[in-house]
Amino acid sequence: MNTKRLGRQSVRFFAPPRLISGAAIVGDVEGEGPLGSCFDIVLADDTWGEESWEKAERKMFEQAVRLALQKCALPVSGVDLLLGGDLLNQIISANFAARELAIPFLGLYGACSTMAESLLLGSMLIDGGYANRVACAATSHFSTAERQYRFPLEMGGQTTPTAQRTVTGAGASLLVAAEDDTKRHFASIRVMGGTIGRVVDLGITDANNMGAAMAPAAADTLAAHLRETGRNAADYDLIVTGDLGRFGSEMFHELCADKGIDLAGKHRDCGNMIFSPQQKVDCGGSGCGCSGVTLNGFLLRQMEEGAVRRMLFMATGALMSPTAGMQGDSIPGIAHAVVLERGE
Amino acid sequence: MNTKRLGRQSVRFFAPPRLISGAAIVGDVEGEGPLGSCFDIVLADDTWGEESWEKAERKMFEQAVRLALQKCALPVSGVDLLLGGDLLNQIISANFAARELAIPFLGLYGACSTMAESLLLGSMLIDGGYANRVACAATSHFSTAERQYRFPLEMGGQTTPTAQRTVTGAGASLLVAAEDDTKRHFASIRVMGGTIGRVVDLGITDANNMGAAMAPAAADTLAAHLRETGRNAADYDLIVTGDLGRFGSEMFHELCADKGIDLAGKHRDCGNMIFSPQQKVDCGGSGCGCSGVTLNGFLLRQMEEGAVRRMLFMATGALMSPTAGMQGDSIPGIAHAVVLERGE
Repeated sequence: MNTKRLGRQSVRFFAPPRLISGAAIVGDVEGEGPLGSCFDIVLADDTWGEESWEKAERKMFEQAVRLALQKCALPVSGVDLLLGGDLLNQIISANFAARELAIPFLGLYGACSTMAESLLLGSMLIDGGYANRVACAATSHFSTAERQYRFPLEMGGQTTPTAQRTVTGAGASLLVAAEDDTKRHFASIRVMGGTIGRVVDLGITDANNMGAAMAPAAADTLAAHLRETGRNAADYDLIVTGDLGRFGSEMFHELCADKGIDLAGKHRDCGNMIFSPQQKVDCGGSGCGCSGVTLNGFLLRQMEEGAVRRMLFMATGALMSPTAGMQGDSIPGIAHAVVLERGE
Repeated sequence: MNTKRLGRQSVRFFAPPRLISGAAIVGDVEGEGPLGSCFDIVLADDTWGEESWEKAERKMFEQAVRLALQKCALPVSGVDLLLGGDLLNQIISANFAARELAIPFLGLYGACSTMAESLLLGSMLIDGGYANRVACAATSHFSTAERQYRFPLEMGGQTTPTAQRTVTGAGASLLVAAEDDTKRHFASIRVMGGTIGRVVDLGITDANNMGAAMAPAAADTLAAHLRETGRNAADYDLIVTGDLGRFGSEMFHELCADKGIDLAGKHRDCGNMIFSPQQKVDCGGSGCGCSGVTLNGFLLRQMEEGAVRRMLFMATGALMSPTAGMQGDSIPGIAHAVVLERGE
């Protein structure tokens, strides 16, 4: 009986890796939101001086990683492994950033679940002894995502009431082995375990209703996590989903209630936190960057300051594809969860 | 000093996971090639009865996984984790197949390096104690890749002399923990370790010259592997690259010679093996499926039969993107390596 495994989907660590740094870079709209003051860099211009939005997106990814390392005075050469991805086809933001960083790289595609997927994998690789320091990152950009997934921005199309705004932003975290003595920006945050998600699909076909496509996956992963760890929602100070948005969060609460899970004030969604209702972003934020910057800019600070002791960070991905959509397919979802704890 | 790590990029296992099964499904052109008799299923029609090539591609991924499990009489529910990806935007082949299989899933994007990326990650997660049985898979399809990456097939465009033909095929392997007692289709193959690649880019911009884009990454990973493990090429019976093709292989040999690596008859490339010179495929095969089916259909059998004892399987990915290409970017490459050994 292998005790690192709790059931089919969940794992726990006996020498929990430390999450010692985080960095978040966002666009101007995100900077004007309620969390604006928490981010390391707020871009005045969402091309960040580059020739295209795509090039700005990869620059955010690269600079977020560099910034997370700088906070710990760690050179890029001090990191063993880079894990991450983004929403662009062929994850070009991550790939080109990885080229600049020249850190050994494993590319991931989990759509908006990427921040959690990278943290979960990175923690397993550290706890397992295959790496000492791993950088995990995810990025998205409103302007690149709109033209890839929906319509050219120049068209000036109207959004639907269930639409969410893809966050322009990149988040990066630095994980190190328990015994690693790198200078810590966050002194006391550890990754205790997590739950690997399954692809779940209740048949949503509307590319403007991502929250509904992801909510079933979030509920499925949370149910598996609680069942396999023998916990209930009350054992967490906070259960955070990635980017369900307003409508998706309602659906998530209903699905949890159906499964007998009492969220009782424990749940917050990054897509709901990052923009204010006055910002005309319909149902909230979305994209890899949404949970990436909310975690690294805001939530980790909350933990470090002691406001949150144990958090389940569950980034949610809508595995949406224009090609699949045009062929009549629905939008499957996935959610991966990591348990973060503040220790001494 | 953590002895599972050999340098920054390489790892070794002390309880090497076993690779107990493999399955390969290919299209008709691949079936007519020199390895045709090795594959489990050769499609007569490359839509496999589906409405689109994309749906056929995901069916190949799903069925290759199912077939690999069937050879060990293992139900889908007996697998802890599925790792894999493909070349389509948002890795829809893998995502939709993962939905049907309902196995906990971590999506990867390593372009044509995916088969090695999934085996390397899967082995680390098993050796680390986070999973007992992991299915690893990769797929590609000539007709979906052409229209996504180059031109619609209906256009009837001419290929250039350096072009490679994307392999229509899916390969799947089943990894299990050393002590796992699942019935073995391959009795004696183990994953001993591997090397995680870096993104390398020598500035190739021609989407019809993938081999040249990948060769520098293959040489970089091989050099790191030999340096960190203290081995030389002669320690391997076979060093296999994924899909450098004829031209890329020549470049790989030159780059290795520059680094002082003597390949001395040890190197073979899946892209060169899968088609015959008579098949008018220009520089050979490419795509995730190329190394996926050559490994699982041919190379693992060679090992099982004793013809190859120690092999370095190094799948190579061209991180090419139409969007990046249109913005004037070059094509970065990456290569990940796994060490496979025949034991008793």
